[in-house]
Amino acid sequence: MSDQTAQPHGPPSDRVRVRRKPERGHYDRATIDAILDGAIVGHVGYLIDDQPFVTPTAIWRQGDRLFWHGSSASRMLRATKGGVPVCVTVTQVDALVLARSGFNHSLDYRSVMVLGRAYELTDETGVLDALRAFVEHLYPGRWDELRPPTRQELKATSVLWMDLAEASAKIRDIGAHDDPGDETWPTWAGSIPLTTVVGTPKPDPFVPAGMTSPTLSRAVARR
Amino acid sequence: MSDQTAQPHGPPSDRVRVRRKPERGHYDRATIDAILDGAIVGHVGYLIDDQPFVTPTAIWRQGDRLFWHGSSASRMLRATKGGVPVCVTVTQVDALVLARSGFNHSLDYRSVMVLGRAYELTDETGVLDALRAFVEHLYPGRWDELRPPTRQELKATSVLWMDLAEASAKIRDIGAHDDPGDETWPTWAGSIPLTTVVGTPKPDPFVPAGMTSPTLSRAVARR
Repeated sequence: MSDQTAQPHGPPSDRVRVRRKPERGHYDRATIDAILDGAIVGHVGYLIDDQPFVTPTAIWRQGDRLFWHGSSASRMLRATKGGVPVCVTVTQVDALVLARSGFNHSLDYRSVMVLGRAYELTDETGVLDALRAFVEHLYPGRWDELRPPTRQELKATSVLWMDLAEASAKIRDIGAHDDPGDETWPTWAGSIPLTTVVGTPKPDPFVPAGMTSPTLSRAVARR
Repeated sequence: MSDQTAQPHGPPSDRVRVRRKPERGHYDRATIDAILDGAIVGHVGYLIDDQPFVTPTAIWRQGDRLFWHGSSASRMLRATKGGVPVCVTVTQVDALVLARSGFNHSLDYRSVMVLGRAYELTDETGVLDALRAFVEHLYPGRWDELRPPTRQELKATSVLWMDLAEASAKIRDIGAHDDPGDETWPTWAGSIPLTTVVGTPKPDPFVPAGMTSPTLSRAVARR
């Protein structure tokens, strides 16, 4: 976690301050980056005609920026790329938490919320760098083994980014917690871990016999 | 749900129509309900001062309604309860999909997006019914074993609902798919399943020896 010697990292803005259960809020970049880097998918919130939309999409981080991408024709990308306010939230549920009252049931989780404005990468070098970082984020070493992108593919792809300056993490990791006096109620209480497990790779029909599947990043292989 | 025997279920509105890759869109309630019922957490999109926010929260379905809840003091609940437009999205990632080009990398997933307006349940019977449904959604049979809710707990809890009338599901389940001619590129391609696995329950210190942990619903135990 953070090296909070003198005082803890405060929220970068009031908008991302964790209000309910402030002890669950974390604002240091090490904590925020660890959650983002362990994620495959984020949920992008944006507005079309006064209606909020939330679209799941693969996300990745490079330095101080969070990225996502997709078809240039995508409604979500067209609605988020023009410097308009967006929110990207990443969530990992770690455990079911069971108490002896319904009220104290909960989940253990790690989440990050990033507020800001999103922009499209416009120079081809930047786009290629970002796409390489995306592939390498999941599968280290894979980019150089791939058939290189064509001009048409690059044209059909939009890459968006937002700054990580306005972000917060929220973490619950304390397991079960009953009210005083409830401990003797005759019901099981505790936590039940949930883990994402990587299954056996399924090669497509064209993979030659003996070719091994790619190495997965720690982000993917250890949630 | 409608029984459109002659033609497939169409989108209930243009706003939830799946535009990119329309073959991934599903609008029948059986498909939508199955994804919602297999979820623990959804991402709620809402607006505060022109800024979209996306908050992860536990969700559950009863009939034609989607529910979430939390502290009456929660900023998210206060911002979503007044009949304002919201979006709730539920996502399950099923597999990493690796192609021989970066462009054709993808994910297999199942997601549901629900648009509409959210309202708070105001009668105590309705709240109790909804909270019971929430607990039973995860842990069948558990509600009657719990210490009953107090009046103060009920007062501190808001339960929100939205109608499922305007919803769509989006599913990708086709694994790897390369462009013609790429199949001979010397790189592994295929899919790698991701599964959420339930770990060993960890009882809290007050659980008597020999007491067994609760039965989990199929929604939790089999993702």
